[in-house]
Amino acid sequence: MLGAEALGVGIGAIGTGFMGGIHARAYRSVPWIFPDAAAYPDIRVVADLRLEDAQAFARRFDIPEWTDNWRTLLGRSDVELVDVCTPPALHLEIATEAAAAGKHVYCEKPVGRDLAETTAIWEAVRKAEVASFVGFNYRMAPAVILAHELISGGRIGQVRQVKVSFRTLFGGSLQAPWSWRFSREQAGCGALADLGSHVFDLALHLAGPIARVCGTTTITVPERPDPARPGATRRVDNDDAFTALAEFASGATGIFDGNRVAIGSASELTFDIVASGGAVRWDMRRMNELQVCFADTPAAEQGFTTIQTGPANPPYGRFIPSSLGLGYADTKVIEAHRVVDALARGEVISPSIGDVVAVARLIDAVQRGGWVEVDA
Amino acid sequence: MLGAEALGVGIGAIGTGFMGGIHARAYRSVPWIFPDAAAYPDIRVVADLRLEDAQAFARRFDIPEWTDNWRTLLGRSDVELVDVCTPPALHLEIATEAAAAGKHVYCEKPVGRDLAETTAIWEAVRKAEVASFVGFNYRMAPAVILAHELISGGRIGQVRQVKVSFRTLFGGSLQAPWSWRFSREQAGCGALADLGSHVFDLALHLAGPIARVCGTTTITVPERPDPARPGATRRVDNDDAFTALAEFASGATGIFDGNRVAIGSASELTFDIVASGGAVRWDMRRMNELQVCFADTPAAEQGFTTIQTGPANPPYGRFIPSSLGLGYADTKVIEAHRVVDALARGEVISPSIGDVVAVARLIDAVQRGGWVEVDA
Amino acid sequence: MLGAEALGVGIGAIGTGFMGGIHARAYRSVPWIFPDAAAYPDIRVVADLRLEDAQAFARRFDIPEWTDNWRTLLGRSDVELVDVCTPPALHLEIATEAAAAGKHVYCEKPVGRDLAETTAIWEAVRKAEVASFVGFNYRMAPAVILAHELISGGRIGQVRQVKVSFRTLFGGSLQAPWSWRFSREQAGCGALADLGSHVFDLALHLAGPIARVCGTTTITVPERPDPARPGATRRVDNDDAFTALAEFASGATGIFDGNRVAIGSASELTFDIVASGGAVRWDMRRMNELQVCFADTPAAEQGFTTIQTGPANPPYGRFIPSSLGLGYADTKVIEAHRVVDALARGEVISPSIGDVVAVARLIDAVQRGGWVEVDA
Amino acid sequence: MLGAEALGVGIGAIGTGFMGGIHARAYRSVPWIFPDAAAYPDIRVVADLRLEDAQAFARRFDIPEWTDNWRTLLGRSDVELVDVCTPPALHLEIATEAAAAGKHVYCEKPVGRDLAETTAIWEAVRKAEVASFVGFNYRMAPAVILAHELISGGRIGQVRQVKVSFRTLFGGSLQAPWSWRFSREQAGCGALADLGSHVFDLALHLAGPIARVCGTTTITVPERPDPARPGATRRVDNDDAFTALAEFASGATGIFDGNRVAIGSASELTFDIVASGGAVRWDMRRMNELQVCFADTPAAEQGFTTIQTGPANPPYGRFIPSSLGLGYADTKVIEAHRVVDALARGEVISPSIGDVVAVARLIDAVQRGGWVEVDA
Repeated sequence: MLGAEALGVGIGAIGTGFMGGIHARAYRSVPWIFPDAAAYPDIRVVADLRLEDAQAFARRFDIPEWTDNWRTLLGRSDVELVDVCTPPALHLEIATEAAAAGKHVYCEKPVGRDLAETTAIWEAVRKAEVASFVGFNYRMAPAVILAHELISGGRIGQVRQVKVSFRTLFGGSLQAPWSWRFSREQAGCGALADLGSHVFDLALHLAGPIARVCGTTTITVPERPDPARPGATRRVDNDDAFTALAEFASGATGIFDGNRVAIGSASELTFDIVASGGAVRWDMRRMNELQVCFADTPAAEQGFTTIQTGPANPPYGRFIPSSLGLGYADTKVIEAHRVVDALARGEVISPSIGDVVAVARLIDAVQRGGWVEVDA
Repeated sequence: MLGAEALGVGIGAIGTGFMGGIHARAYRSVPWIFPDAAAYPDIRVVADLRLEDAQAFARRFDIPEWTDNWRTLLGRSDVELVDVCTPPALHLEIATEAAAAGKHVYCEKPVGRDLAETTAIWEAVRKAEVASFVGFNYRMAPAVILAHELISGGRIGQVRQVKVSFRTLFGGSLQAPWSWRFSREQAGCGALADLGSHVFDLALHLAGPIARVCGTTTITVPERPDPARPGATRRVDNDDAFTALAEFASGATGIFDGNRVAIGSASELTFDIVASGGAVRWDMRRMNELQVCFADTPAAEQGFTTIQTGPANPPYGRFIPSSLGLGYADTKVIEAHRVVDALARGEVISPSIGDVVAVARLIDAVQRGGWVEVDA
Repeated sequence: MLGAEALGVGIGAIGTGFMGGIHARAYRSVPWIFPDAAAYPDIRVVADLRLEDAQAFARRFDIPEWTDNWRTLLGRSDVELVDVCTPPALHLEIATEAAAAGKHVYCEKPVGRDLAETTAIWEAVRKAEVASFVGFNYRMAPAVILAHELISGGRIGQVRQVKVSFRTLFGGSLQAPWSWRFSREQAGCGALADLGSHVFDLALHLAGPIARVCGTTTITVPERPDPARPGATRRVDNDDAFTALAEFASGATGIFDGNRVAIGSASELTFDIVASGGAVRWDMRRMNELQVCFADTPAAEQGFTTIQTGPANPPYGRFIPSSLGLGYADTKVIEAHRVVDALARGEVISPSIGDVVAVARLIDAVQRGGWVEVDA
Repeated sequence: MLGAEALGVGIGAIGTGFMGGIHARAYRSVPWIFPDAAAYPDIRVVADLRLEDAQAFARRFDIPEWTDNWRTLLGRSDVELVDVCTPPALHLEIATEAAAAGKHVYCEKPVGRDLAETTAIWEAVRKAEVASFVGFNYRMAPAVILAHELISGGRIGQVRQVKVSFRTLFGGSLQAPWSWRFSREQAGCGALADLGSHVFDLALHLAGPIARVCGTTTITVPERPDPARPGATRRVDNDDAFTALAEFASGATGIFDGNRVAIGSASELTFDIVASGGAVRWDMRRMNELQVCFADTPAAEQGFTTIQTGPANPPYGRFIPSSLGLGYADTKVIEAHRVVDALARGEVISPSIGDVVAVARLIDAVQRGGWVEVDA
């Protein structure tokens, strides 16, 4: 497929839902987009609790083997990396056993259903001295990479305020049926875990550690139609929305929220960062654009510049040589390349599961309802 | 000037700064825009502590008399309404004496420098049984009037979440000089009073009473160049920014902030309201536009509609018979018309100084730093 | 009203419709916004064919005299400037007689109903050696002033392409009733005159003379309900829309259009200019914003900057000391100030009626349907 | 790979540049996105004039065979579809020979370098009775599919005006080096072919046949640095920009332009269609959004709705179950699926090379410089 020198990284994939498919597409795309990669992903086997799903997935993505017993992956010498795309309730068991078996772990967010689970997984990974990776793919959008560079390079000065918000409408309607996402037992927190983990990861990634946080969680729609029992409803017991204020270690202030019942917000993930020398803004719905303002522009010409990212913004040019637009799935290709590249080079990269522990601490603190010092 | 039946409302104006000028322009414009008004404003005298400022203002706006002693206005029988456009430090004295003299009071925001002052003014007004009015003119933009109608008329269902933010950059630069606005003694709070009073007024106006609030205040730039002493700096002792979470009496959640050091934000006042049946968004920088989403639109065609307000949105058509755009000053014309119209008809209207007490309670609570129950 | 040294310029106003009111408001506002003006406008008398309209207008704007015979204005020694806000069918007669009487002429656009009329008016003005002014007020928006400066100052290099478009929806509905605007006899051209005159004025103002033009005109809705005869319709005999290509003397290309039946376009006047070193874009609906791109910005950060005009963009700060937004009527205040200032100083300014002749040549050429060399 | 019933369509790919890679990625992605497809693409061999490029491409995309002689593909029985991604100068030869060999042809745009070549290819395809397909992938964006449905379904009434524009900045700088794109011999027309073919295809696709057209072409930067001879320049002999007016058979008017030297325009492809009952607008840079206005909305609430396309807009949900955003490459996956699906079902679909002949007629007419009747 690639040069003779390229290493194949053996992958065992667990979970065949939407996110599993996104991962498989990303792995397959790595050599096309990064033909000079140090390694390429090689999916050797896929597992799902339902054998027919595993088989269909294997056929769809041309994977040679499939199983309904994910534990078999852990015993295979040709599997170096275990890719965890199951619902969160299975993460603890799979990730800790995979680590114990000496496999590197690439886990979707939220990693644990709560701080304890996330910490336990991180402990297992550390103890086993394996590498870990987490699917915080919004970091990978070229516009977000540019934002990170502008901030970390000091181009916009000292951060003063950080707003991050992630709102979706999938639960917006009172008629939206109950699913595992609305169950604390199966999903852990609701919007706070599903959306909040991205919110807090972006905040930490872009503006550094948070010292204190104070939040709220709300159940807006307390009962939903039970798809299993026509005419009946089922109780929602995790949050539909959260809000939070924060103080960063740097002294900057933070304003965060997530909402899964937000009419009008079709996957609206945004950040808005004000600093002493400029400001940056991003909206996932226009993921290829970054809004940047530099304070040293003359007042009569100052404002936000809409940068349409393109070939001048790495690794954009790998995909298209003009500004015709990347999509959500492309961010996962960038992420997959980083994962196998790090493994091939033996480098430790962020975001690791350790980074998720910091996120999980914030999620935990928000639920307590008043100001909470966060141990960074 | 107008029909013989139109009443002239005698006005004594105090304060000749920017806001005083805006008021004078608005009064003069009322008969042009509302030629059928029940009354028209008649500025009989203007006061300023500096006589030459009062005189220049009188010449500029064709006002027959001027004085450097605002108390003389209170004894004039031809003055029915006292218009207070001074810095906040003078509001208490002027407004309470005006009320005691039986004059109606039209006061710019923030009314008092703190809750105690605001409450005292409101008590004086109530005791004297005079009418009171406050300059919360953003309510008057036709797009905001439309938003209010959509919400209060139940068109977008039950409010779930309210975000209001007011950010400006006038203090953004470290070189921006010290002025009275940066002094707690002279201005009371900083961004929390100056910007926050508009933030909380819009929140209460659009989404009803707030039950609890939790906030932060921050001084971002603690010292500024002292314009009186070249080379020296002067301490800033009121807030550059505030953030707040809230719970409305209805159960809706609130997220609020104000910031006077926000690089990139040229007078960025925005609200964003999510409800069970829709959502509305507004940005003062595009004051003639309202963004509205209705949840009952088919999913394949749902989204925010940018309504370019125009003659179909009262009282827009009074100004221009096409959607060519109103400006900030026009909102004050609408406000001035409401004030004199209410006086002529003997009607009690909102926002009164009583409404500002509710705002002042929130401002007071935000400063305490944790969750505070607000007595509605 | 102002300083003793300020001159009052005596004005006789003709026409009391919407535009007449806008002019009156502008004249009255000049001393408020420009208290240091070299002169202030003094409306001495207003004329309208209907005496009651003239009287009501005089009361509304506090004008001491009124008449139903506009010719009486021309004989008054206290009238220096005749302000023409009538429908276009009266412009020729009024403007030529006013000039012949030695009065300066300030005429709304389109000046003549066709090239012959416009030329005749210009000849009368030149022969009488009086000053002339035209209401191309969009030039006066601070964002447009900034665009003009950037272009004329060479900041964005050599202009390569110019798009100007003005679309409205006032005739969009098939049910929109017939009015004088839909009559060639009364209005001259339709969209081509009403909207096209602004389109071509902005094009010439921003990018210089046009050498050749080729256009189309279309009647989209050929019959409209006759408001005078319920149930009957009346024929539309001037254009609902025009399109045009052009070549500027500089070699730049032009693309122009106007449309009064444009569903969705609430007063959408836009320009979009591409040059060798940058580009600028403006949309009247967001009249306080200018979009600017500079080609010398590094590719990775290039894009359009949304400049929110404010106090740093003269004469914006005259109106408001922050970026809270000017409106359409404010552009007329700037225009009125320029007119009386030019008269007081004896300076010749643009746009004069001579400038409208250049516009009228283009309007004339567009109607011929093929490429037409325009005599500049 | 897929179900046993799915057919593999044997493909021979010619050309290994950017567009060849996009096609290969699309072919590979079809079974992932459309696992229920009637057929799946099977790339059996790739050809490039440079053998090492063919080989590298084959390794990158896991293609079993490669060659530097594209004619060998035509003799292979396992190749049913020839995919032509070479520069335009080779299209005539390859496509006509492929058709003559009984192969179906999928050719990138512009198909011929001029009308004669395009017509000759179409004649060859018709004579051979093979299927033909063209890469007008912008039609495939879900937002454009929605626009097409709204128009063709009569939802926005009768089309009145159509604007389509495609501007890029790849030639914007005077320092951008000469390449084959700037040569009439190698590329045919410049912007008119490269960008104009998309412009006219979208116009015809969305609004039907064009009866007359009148255009201009311009060389803005007549010489460019010759990459082969440092310090020397080379002449540009095809157009940098074109503009055109048109009349549709329906009576609607058209305004079109393309520009490859448009500073500020990073791949800005837009359409803007006004109809009697509504309007739609699209901008490729925000390819997942469609702006729609319906005229039957009450005036006070009318405006453009920004539809963020998502799972409710087929085939969006095939890619992602939320509105997180497709990218440019995804449009090619939709296109590739349509191609193999049509072949498997034996259905004739649009756009075929016959559709490109209509586009080529317009491109030809624009070059003549005056109004030209187009034979539809």
